[in-house]
Amino acid sequence: MTKLARFLPILDWGRRYDRTTFSNDAVAAVIVTIMLVPQSLAYALLAGLPPEAGIYASIAPIVLYAIFGTSQALAVGPVAVVSLMTATAVGQVAEQGTAGYAAAALTLAFLSGAFLLALGALRLGWLANFLSHPVIAGFITASGVLIATSQLKHILGVQAGGHNLIEMVGSLIAHLGQVNAPTLVIGAGATAFLFWVRKGLKPLLLRAGLPPLAADILSKAGPVAAVAVTTAITALLDLGAAGVAIVGQVPQGLPPLTMPDFAPDLVAQLALPAVLISIIGFVESISVAQTLAAKRRQRIDPDQELIGLGAANLGAAFTGGYPVTGGFARSVVNFDAGAQTPAAGAFTAGGLLMASLFLTPLIHDLPKATLAATIIVAVLGLVDLSILRRTWRYSRADFAAVAATIALTLLAGVETGVASGVALSVALHLYKTARPHVAEVGLVPGTQHFRNVRRHKVETAPNLLTLRVDESLYFVNARFLEDMVLSRVGEGGAVSDVVLMMSAVNEIDFSALETLEELNRRLRDMGVRLHLSEVKGPVMDRLRRSHFLDELTGKVFLSQWDAWRELARPAQGGARAAR
Amino acid sequence: MTKLARFLPILDWGRRYDRTTFSNDAVAAVIVTIMLVPQSLAYALLAGLPPEAGIYASIAPIVLYAIFGTSQALAVGPVAVVSLMTATAVGQVAEQGTAGYAAAALTLAFLSGAFLLALGALRLGWLANFLSHPVIAGFITASGVLIATSQLKHILGVQAGGHNLIEMVGSLIAHLGQVNAPTLVIGAGATAFLFWVRKGLKPLLLRAGLPPLAADILSKAGPVAAVAVTTAITALLDLGAAGVAIVGQVPQGLPPLTMPDFAPDLVAQLALPAVLISIIGFVESISVAQTLAAKRRQRIDPDQELIGLGAANLGAAFTGGYPVTGGFARSVVNFDAGAQTPAAGAFTAGGLLMASLFLTPLIHDLPKATLAATIIVAVLGLVDLSILRRTWRYSRADFAAVAATIALTLLAGVETGVASGVALSVALHLYKTARPHVAEVGLVPGTQHFRNVRRHKVETAPNLLTLRVDESLYFVNARFLEDMVLSRVGEGGAVSDVVLMMSAVNEIDFSALETLEELNRRLRDMGVRLHLSEVKGPVMDRLRRSHFLDELTGKVFLSQWDAWRELARPAQGGARAAR
Repeated sequence: MTKLARFLPILDWGRRYDRTTFSNDAVAAVIVTIMLVPQSLAYALLAGLPPEAGIYASIAPIVLYAIFGTSQALAVGPVAVVSLMTATAVGQVAEQGTAGYAAAALTLAFLSGAFLLALGALRLGWLANFLSHPVIAGFITASGVLIATSQLKHILGVQAGGHNLIEMVGSLIAHLGQVNAPTLVIGAGATAFLFWVRKGLKPLLLRAGLPPLAADILSKAGPVAAVAVTTAITALLDLGAAGVAIVGQVPQGLPPLTMPDFAPDLVAQLALPAVLISIIGFVESISVAQTLAAKRRQRIDPDQELIGLGAANLGAAFTGGYPVTGGFARSVVNFDAGAQTPAAGAFTAGGLLMASLFLTPLIHDLPKATLAATIIVAVLGLVDLSILRRTWRYSRADFAAVAATIALTLLAGVETGVASGVALSVALHLYKTARPHVAEVGLVPGTQHFRNVRRHKVETAPNLLTLRVDESLYFVNARFLEDMVLSRVGEGGAVSDVVLMMSAVNEIDFSALETLEELNRRLRDMGVRLHLSEVKGPVMDRLRRSHFLDELTGKVFLSQWDAWRELARPAQGGARAAR
Repeated sequence: MTKLARFLPILDWGRRYDRTTFSNDAVAAVIVTIMLVPQSLAYALLAGLPPEAGIYASIAPIVLYAIFGTSQALAVGPVAVVSLMTATAVGQVAEQGTAGYAAAALTLAFLSGAFLLALGALRLGWLANFLSHPVIAGFITASGVLIATSQLKHILGVQAGGHNLIEMVGSLIAHLGQVNAPTLVIGAGATAFLFWVRKGLKPLLLRAGLPPLAADILSKAGPVAAVAVTTAITALLDLGAAGVAIVGQVPQGLPPLTMPDFAPDLVAQLALPAVLISIIGFVESISVAQTLAAKRRQRIDPDQELIGLGAANLGAAFTGGYPVTGGFARSVVNFDAGAQTPAAGAFTAGGLLMASLFLTPLIHDLPKATLAATIIVAVLGLVDLSILRRTWRYSRADFAAVAATIALTLLAGVETGVASGVALSVALHLYKTARPHVAEVGLVPGTQHFRNVRRHKVETAPNLLTLRVDESLYFVNARFLEDMVLSRVGEGGAVSDVVLMMSAVNEIDFSALETLEELNRRLRDMGVRLHLSEVKGPVMDRLRRSHFLDELTGKVFLSQWDAWRELARPAQGGARAAR
């Protein structure tokens, strides 16, 4: 692979493109297109944008990702969580339905794209690792609940609002008197139908003798059926006049060329949301891409993925879209339908272009309640409260991170939720590593091995205290080691030599070095010598660059056994029982 | 030691108090008192408060610390860095010289005291470990430079100002035309004298045959001599009338009972500075206390120290003082002069009480320039730029933390400097641990030991990839391990089994658990089994609480040797050379 091909993966797979690959890709593209039309309209509604924005956001981005991305099956476009985050971020700077709102969504896509490109260029993809799994799981679950709740107003046909779960529910209850009956019938009916399609249709088709793949794909077409049927009913009965909110006039034509608004105030207000959207989107996308790649023993380059997603978002910014990322549902359908190269994505874009050119007049009477039903059924799949139970069983610290992220996302919003989750995870991690694992060890009789005195029957010598340090020493935990040694020596007894066994210490930072120097001085003041044993090569190299080894009152032993032979003066009793 | 004695250490040492201890403590108290009078006046000047506030801040706090603190020799009172931080914090909410300024200083002392007590009660003393040594060293050095620069205006006798180094220097240069000649003569003379006392007097006294302790103590009395001589000259020549700024009228009497201002606005503005002052003060104090305690094989209880310092600050708040902490210079003098119990501190308080009752009329004509000289000579001892060189040699990350802390403290102020230093240290640490140390290992021929293939001549088997993980796995680094395994397996070859050797893994958090599950699934999709070996007991206990072990495609081996015997199918060539 040449260097250029690394940054333009299309040069790699494009060269090997043939007729079989083409037909596989084309079939996948048709299936994905049918699935994407209603989904794109629905997510645009969720983002507070006109429905066509969802289609536009799927066209240029999918092509750009095909050029720059490394996944063979990832499908890029609007997704639920990013749409909600867009609505939250843009809602803070503009009113829904205004031109300023759509322009701000472009700015947000541009900033996300620029940020992702910058991370990719600087090869900083690993920063996404700061989102721990409990934080992601809690955030996605809470977002699913928020999204589903936010769509209930469309099902009920009321004008409710609210920025967090409590406000939303309160507003829905306050508006219960104004429920529009036809809307509720369509909305509830579509929701029930889609749930049935999701859970019940596929087994039915399988029993009817369809091959599994066909059954799967047919059941994915449920939203299209719901859209077609409810649009037809609404048009025939003229339910728009009866108060059913419909999509209305959708422009027919190619995606427009658009220019984001670069007003400095706007950019400043959207910068932080753009960073959060980028990171959340990147984490979601890369996890889908890696899952699919592993199934074919392929590899994903996370830094190149940043470039691909960045280009996709810039594409969205200049063609009337909004922030996009690799979506789970669409990518899995693409993969299962047999897509083999990113060209399948390009063909899907072609299909959506056709839809945008010719189909938009047909969805004039599409009820918003049907789109809301599509969203609700899709996002409830994201809600996974079992994460609470699983983390509770495994580790209280991780449970705290999940619970806090869920609670804060629901009550204080998506941005606060995810930011607090990250801060809490880092704090909990530092708390856990603040006390390094340190074991007092003794000699296993008849061997040259040293084990924990609390767990094994080992020999110790009253004049010799040997501590095995099981973690790298750094500023947060070094002092704890010092306190432990000093208090153990201060307990009295006849300790004349302390050995720190450094077999598991990979690093000693400057703070820890100074703490060791201090420990050496303080032990010297107490008349006790400090020794080290089994120091790793790189750690030793670094210690040689300081004065520590000159000042050390004791020696550095290659092995703990050497230290024992030179220093231990066993008590009369011989081996001491484990305690 | 009873439980009560733990919280009231005085019950412990008070019981064993006798005549010898008393005379030792009393001698130390006399010496410390002589040193503290000018120092307290000077630090009050630095904090922007009337001179008597420095004396008051030494009386009640020293007694309260004697009751609650655990160090036998620590002397509590105003110190340079905390005085500067007080001036910065209070200067943001009130004008120097107003009643509001002094009241706000009391509020700050109260908030610091309350925060320290809360930390102590919750046993959160370890939080101070988040201040890494490079951050502390950089902060103290930069503070020393800032303090010395801020005092130059008193030496020159001009009204300069400025909130950071550049502003201060600029303002001094702008005021050079207004230098007061008599002030400059006194200030420069006192500074030169004090420097000479510090560097040259002690060797001279030693050569003259004085015992080392007496020489040391006599040279500590330099500031008193400077105060006496310059005050006498100023009074005799009536230099106050010639434009030399003097201390002026100082109230004569007991420390007043004062009430801090609890206005909610003020409390909100001073809360964060109080937290920073508390932590910086605590770190300085505990480091002095531990150094002195180690010399007598005594122990300091950090959480009880928080209680002692908290009580001292509350005392300062209600008796006309300002934030205090354990000071380096005064504590060392106290220790060297023979103080054996906290009672020495109580006697020092008595001495200062006498000074406050009887000596204040004598310092009416004390030039502020003399106090400034005292401060400059004291704080230049804090400036240690060698930390830059030492960290540069030892570790670039630590150097970055020092340099950033120094630069930000000098240019953006003490609060920004220390807060950014902490944030940067945490970020650098996480960055360093983001890539866990993982080594590919092979069998050392003829043994049961496994070592790094890059460093040793070992046997490997083409079907078996063994990786030794040298760090605990957590959310930031787990994905890196996954990427590494997948890319190593994806390189091709005939790997059928991957073994993770977990001998150095002390913890696997929930994110890392899920990453291992994901790795297991992805390897399964590639037709590769995943095994573990040498898993520690506590880690294994926790894994048993998850489904990971049920889903694991391979086995958990007790030792790597067991794994090798069962899995390895060596290539025809036998042992492979180290690569």
